[in-house]
Amino acid sequence: MELVTGVKMEKPMEIGTEVQVRGSVYALRDMGNLIFLILRRREGLLQGVISGEGAKSYLKDVGEADTIEISGILSENEKAPGGVEVIVDGVNVLSKATGEMLPLPISKWRLQTSLEAKLNYRAIALRNLRERAKFKLQEGLVRGFRDYLYAHGFTEIHTPKLAARGAEGGANMFRLDYFHKPAVLSQSPQFYKQMMVGVYDRVFETAPAFRAEKHNTKRHLNEYISLDLEMGYIDSFTEIMEMETGYLQAAFALLKAEYQKELRILDLELPKVEAIPAVRFSEIKELVAREYGHKIKNPFDLEPEEEVLISRYAKEKWGTDFVFVTHYPTKKRPFYAMEDPEDRNYTLSFDLLFRGMEITTGGQRIHDYHELLEKIASRGMTTEGMEQYLMAFKHGMPPHGGLGIGLERLTMKLCQEENVRETTLFPRDMSRLEP
Amino acid sequence: MELVTGVKMEKPMEIGTEVQVRGSVYALRDMGNLIFLILRRREGLLQGVISGEGAKSYLKDVGEADTIEISGILSENEKAPGGVEVIVDGVNVLSKATGEMLPLPISKWRLQTSLEAKLNYRAIALRNLRERAKFKLQEGLVRGFRDYLYAHGFTEIHTPKLAARGAEGGANMFRLDYFHKPAVLSQSPQFYKQMMVGVYDRVFETAPAFRAEKHNTKRHLNEYISLDLEMGYIDSFTEIMEMETGYLQAAFALLKAEYQKELRILDLELPKVEAIPAVRFSEIKELVAREYGHKIKNPFDLEPEEEVLISRYAKEKWGTDFVFVTHYPTKKRPFYAMEDPEDRNYTLSFDLLFRGMEITTGGQRIHDYHELLEKIASRGMTTEGMEQYLMAFKHGMPPHGGLGIGLERLTMKLCQEENVRETTLFPRDMSRLEP
Repeated sequence: MELVTGVKMEKPMEIGTEVQVRGSVYALRDMGNLIFLILRRREGLLQGVISGEGAKSYLKDVGEADTIEISGILSENEKAPGGVEVIVDGVNVLSKATGEMLPLPISKWRLQTSLEAKLNYRAIALRNLRERAKFKLQEGLVRGFRDYLYAHGFTEIHTPKLAARGAEGGANMFRLDYFHKPAVLSQSPQFYKQMMVGVYDRVFETAPAFRAEKHNTKRHLNEYISLDLEMGYIDSFTEIMEMETGYLQAAFALLKAEYQKELRILDLELPKVEAIPAVRFSEIKELVAREYGHKIKNPFDLEPEEEVLISRYAKEKWGTDFVFVTHYPTKKRPFYAMEDPEDRNYTLSFDLLFRGMEITTGGQRIHDYHELLEKIASRGMTTEGMEQYLMAFKHGMPPHGGLGIGLERLTMKLCQEENVRETTLFPRDMSRLEP
Repeated sequence: MELVTGVKMEKPMEIGTEVQVRGSVYALRDMGNLIFLILRRREGLLQGVISGEGAKSYLKDVGEADTIEISGILSENEKAPGGVEVIVDGVNVLSKATGEMLPLPISKWRLQTSLEAKLNYRAIALRNLRERAKFKLQEGLVRGFRDYLYAHGFTEIHTPKLAARGAEGGANMFRLDYFHKPAVLSQSPQFYKQMMVGVYDRVFETAPAFRAEKHNTKRHLNEYISLDLEMGYIDSFTEIMEMETGYLQAAFALLKAEYQKELRILDLELPKVEAIPAVRFSEIKELVAREYGHKIKNPFDLEPEEEVLISRYAKEKWGTDFVFVTHYPTKKRPFYAMEDPEDRNYTLSFDLLFRGMEITTGGQRIHDYHELLEKIASRGMTTEGMEQYLMAFKHGMPPHGGLGIGLERLTMKLCQEENVRETTLFPRDMSRLEP
């Protein structure tokens, strides 16, 4: 019997001391009696320098993409990545690559290659510093979401992705056989998070959602990460927008504090989120139509072009990258959306647009049992399969509302990317199930 | 246009001041001219007291499970839940329940009802204070996992749950039609987290995993949350066990610091995890067989009864609730498991047992491309569908390993529950797809 007692925190390396450093060989620059050996590590790049007549002998077994350990004195060097380098006096190979040429030149600053190639060689493409920096920022966005909500009294929940029926209905569900019973993959944790508001008052979840939508666009994924929250005891749906604004402020503060390296690698400036304008759907729709000579085709929803124009307007007039569009038409919102008591053609709901694209849908929900039943009936829907959901309302639910944020879209817009696949580790779309 | 500027932190309520408090009516005790009104809130229970001749008039519209706001002076009272109560001078109904009797007596301290009933009325059962406390602890276990790993240089990843093929192979996969192509639901992020070790050195994921296993036992779920980590540049698989031990230490410290209320409600003591014994599979198997007169039926794996006996032995001899069992037979481990160079019949792998049950499987993985190909061939497997996985190894992977923890099982054993469904919000098993 042996005893396992835990892990010590790694000590930071000190200048002038002997260090052992491990990493993957990112680049080898052989200048004769002077060899630069660049290691790729999770912290970034680290340069090793080997000089003198025997320099080459250290490297006879070392090739690109091998993982190795170098030892030597850590020294300052302004010109080296990170301002330090190791004066190497020993090299130890940990694991050999095959030596075959890499399918993509990952040690270039920018991977000048097609999205298709990046996705086909995903495990390799992501080793590029700029590619991987995007997903490190994505980590910060999720982490900020959770930390902000923990601090505001939310409870994290895990709801099932296999279900007998979908929350939103419609045709866009993946169907499967579950031990000889029909099942679907969850499009949204909507019903579950509402039920859990009855338990914890405030809940959130960060989990995959699945949509069998037959869209092959730059903004659609068939599997994505949804940052969901739902909160009870609200006086107005404005409180949900306030919570999202607060989240964005906290997340960007976290990125600024702990993800500076990645922001620099990607040369990104964080957008301002001190205040986000909120405008009514019907007003802004007409406003941008007039302002930019756009012809309104669908009065009940926003077309992608209109989202772009509204964001353009917000940027030009108010100087903001974010804009809330509120009071969407009842006709286009799900049955559980609460209608505006002042005009029942509209709902107490909102979308958040970020640089021309919807990244969030949210709003207040109906909390009264009888009102919910009437709404279901008036839409010609059946309550079959909703018994458990309705039971929560029968036995008392506080006034509540919530939202869902598309993580990959938020990351995409933050990173100024043009395609949501650029900010998805392993995207799933109509034609892509691998890798 | 209006401006949304974020959320202010809620101020704690002060004794002796006028407060407004919202909650769900948990219990109403009418003693004539003295009425106790207990609210259920996310922070716990709060008592309101209404006295005097007009007491009843405040409550003519208030019933059990309504959500209300009370106002009054916050006062100390040792006998009230939490040591405080509100001397009520106003009651405002926010949302009415129907008044129908609750299907379960949730305001009882213990829900003395069958698991079946608790699951059938899940949205209501979870409102019971003890029921919801378990899932608050579950939150702490996940939160502790992430926070510990962030602090140790791990990057959080999100890998797809829809895939063309499974990582482990075998029959236990849910299959579906993905735009006229065959797809499966992910049993494990194994291949993806290994590929991502090539990118970030250390990665983790907390996400659902799906297993179409035809087991209807107290310990199996068909959908569960897997806490996965994978770490590169290890010298030995012991480092993975050290990381898990460190995680458990950190998680229990978090529970002690921030989830004291729930630990008290459930009357739980946290197990000791300063050191966890590690014993070899073949040795401990024989040892407990001798010690407890157990007959070994399967020399290549542990039966559930053997897990119980090993935990019993660990408790009796070493005083621990946890025990690592190491060096599982190669025959029973997946192809990517690294064999022990000293005896290739065994692998550099482990399970962690907690109070009689396996809650983790982990180990070192093969990192050499050629060795991996040979292993696949020697098992009569095909590399078809593994091209992307193998590409990562072709182009260099550090020595690495990792583990997966079943969140619901960990919670179950921590809460001393007998059935894993007790610690799953909405369990999925062979006969249950709803709610």
